[in-house]
Amino acid sequence: MDIIRSADSMAEWSRKARLAGKTIGLVPTMGALHQGHISLINKARRENDLLVVSIFVNPLQFAPGEDYARYPRDEERDLSITGKAGADAVFTPDAGSFSEGEKTIISVPGMNKLLCGESRPTHFDGVTTVVAKLFNVTGANKAYFGEKDFQQLVIVKRMVSDLRIPVEVVGCPTIRESDGLAMSSRNRYLDADERIRGLSLRSGILEAQRMVKEGIREANKIEESVKKILNEANLTIDYVSICHPDTLNKIDHLDGPARILVAAKVGKTRLIDNDSV
Amino acid sequence: MDIIRSADSMAEWSRKARLAGKTIGLVPTMGALHQGHISLINKARRENDLLVVSIFVNPLQFAPGEDYARYPRDEERDLSITGKAGADAVFTPDAGSFSEGEKTIISVPGMNKLLCGESRPTHFDGVTTVVAKLFNVTGANKAYFGEKDFQQLVIVKRMVSDLRIPVEVVGCPTIRESDGLAMSSRNRYLDADERIRGLSLRSGILEAQRMVKEGIREANKIEESVKKILNEANLTIDYVSICHPDTLNKIDHLDGPARILVAAKVGKTRLIDNDSV
Repeated sequence: MDIIRSADSMAEWSRKARLAGKTIGLVPTMGALHQGHISLINKARRENDLLVVSIFVNPLQFAPGEDYARYPRDEERDLSITGKAGADAVFTPDAGSFSEGEKTIISVPGMNKLLCGESRPTHFDGVTTVVAKLFNVTGANKAYFGEKDFQQLVIVKRMVSDLRIPVEVVGCPTIRESDGLAMSSRNRYLDADERIRGLSLRSGILEAQRMVKEGIREANKIEESVKKILNEANLTIDYVSICHPDTLNKIDHLDGPARILVAAKVGKTRLIDNDSV
Repeated sequence: MDIIRSADSMAEWSRKARLAGKTIGLVPTMGALHQGHISLINKARRENDLLVVSIFVNPLQFAPGEDYARYPRDEERDLSITGKAGADAVFTPDAGSFSEGEKTIISVPGMNKLLCGESRPTHFDGVTTVVAKLFNVTGANKAYFGEKDFQQLVIVKRMVSDLRIPVEVVGCPTIRESDGLAMSSRNRYLDADERIRGLSLRSGILEAQRMVKEGIREANKIEESVKKILNEANLTIDYVSICHPDTLNKIDHLDGPARILVAAKVGKTRLIDNDSV
C-alpha cells in the first residue's frame, strides 16, 4: 500500500493508473476509521481496480470554536485498517498543506445553509471545496460517502452533477452500533450517560417511521413527536426536519420520497442521524 | 469536425480520446471569433493531438442589463473558421442548457470583486463556474486564454491551482488591430468616432510604459497620466490600475513585476486593455 503525502504525488499516481486503463475508487475520510468507513472501503474495493482512501482532517469544514484541534487522529491505526482492507494507496496530505493559502471556494447555495448549515454556515463550502480537490487529485471514477452525513452526500452529488465532475458519487447505508447508534468518530467524545441519551436520535427516527406507517402524513406532527423524545433524553435539539431527499427542501405533507434528519447536542457533543420515512 | 451540442456527448468524446492516449487542447470562446481567437486556436492546434473549441455565450457571466441578448452570435461563420483552423470538435451546447437550473458556484474571493469585478460583481463567479465545467466536460489537458482578459486569465489560473484541476492554463498575447486596438467581439458595437476614441486605451498604456522606462516609479502618478488621456478622448473611466500580475493586488511603487489594467466606456460600449509595465 502506497502512503502518499503530497497532492502532486497523488496526481501522478492517479495519472499513471488511468493511463494503464485502471478504474479508481475513492473513500474520502477524516481518519479515526470505524466500521462505517470500513463498509465504504469494502464496497469500493469490490467495485474498482484500484482503491484509494484519503485521510485528511479538513480545516475548511470546521468553524472557529468547533472540534478541529481535538478531532481524533490515529494514523497508525488507520493505516493498519486500510492496509488490511486492501487499499492500494492512502492519500494523507499534511495537516493544512492541502488547503492552505487558498482563495477558491465551491459552494452550493440553497442547500449549504439549510439544516446543519444553519448552525454551521461555512461547513458545507469547506466540504465541497476540499472534496472537489480530492476528486481532481485522485482522478477517482467512483467515490463513496455514507448516508450518515446525508446532507453532505446530497450536496456533493449536486456539486458533481452541476459542475459535471467526471466521478460517480455512491451513497452507502449508515452503519450502526448493535444498539442502533449511528457510527461516528465523534461517538468517542460521549461518556456512559451521554452514550445512552444519544440513542434517542435513533428512537426518534424509529418513532417517525412508525407514525408514517400508521398513516400520519403531517410532517409537523411527526417532527413534534421526535422532538419530544429528544427533549425527554435531555438533548439540545438543533433541528428535526422532514425533507425531500434530493433537494433537501422541507416537506409539509408526506406523499412521496422523504427523509427525516435530526441533529442534537448531548452535552458538548453534536450528533446527527437520518433515515427515509 | 464534430459538432457536439450536449455535455454528455462531449464527455463521451473526450473519455474515448483520453483512453486512446490522445492529448486534448481546449479554446473556450463565446463565439464571434476574431483573429485573437484564431491565434489561440492555432497555438492549441500545434500543441495537442486533438483540438476542441467551445462556443458558449455564458449567461452566468452577464448581469441583468448587460449585453447578453445582443452579444454577437454567428454560428455558421464560427464553424467555418474553426473548421479551416483544423479543430477536431466544436462544443456548442444550446443556449442556457449548459448552465440552467444549477446551484453550484465556484468563486475566487479576494480577486473576483477587484477591477472589473467592482462594476461587474457576479461576472467572474459566472466565468469560473462555467470554465470549470468546460474543463470537466472536455477533459482538456491544456486550455488557452487571451491576455486581453487578463483578470479572467489570472482568476482561472488561480482556480485551477487551488482546486488542482488537471489542466494547464496557457495565457496568450493580446492580438491587436493594425492601429493598436485590442481585438474584441465587442469592437463591432463601436461607430467610427467611438472606434477612434477607443484607441486611447492603448495610447494610455503606451504612455504608462514610456513613463516607467523613464524611471517613474509612483503608480499613482502613472495612473493619473493615463486617466488624463482617457478623459481627453471623452471616455467614461471605470478604472486605471497598476497591479501585481499574479495576485492582482494594487501596487503603489513599481519595483518588480507589474501590469497596468484599464477599463472605460466609449459611448455604451465597455472596453478593456492591459499590458505589463
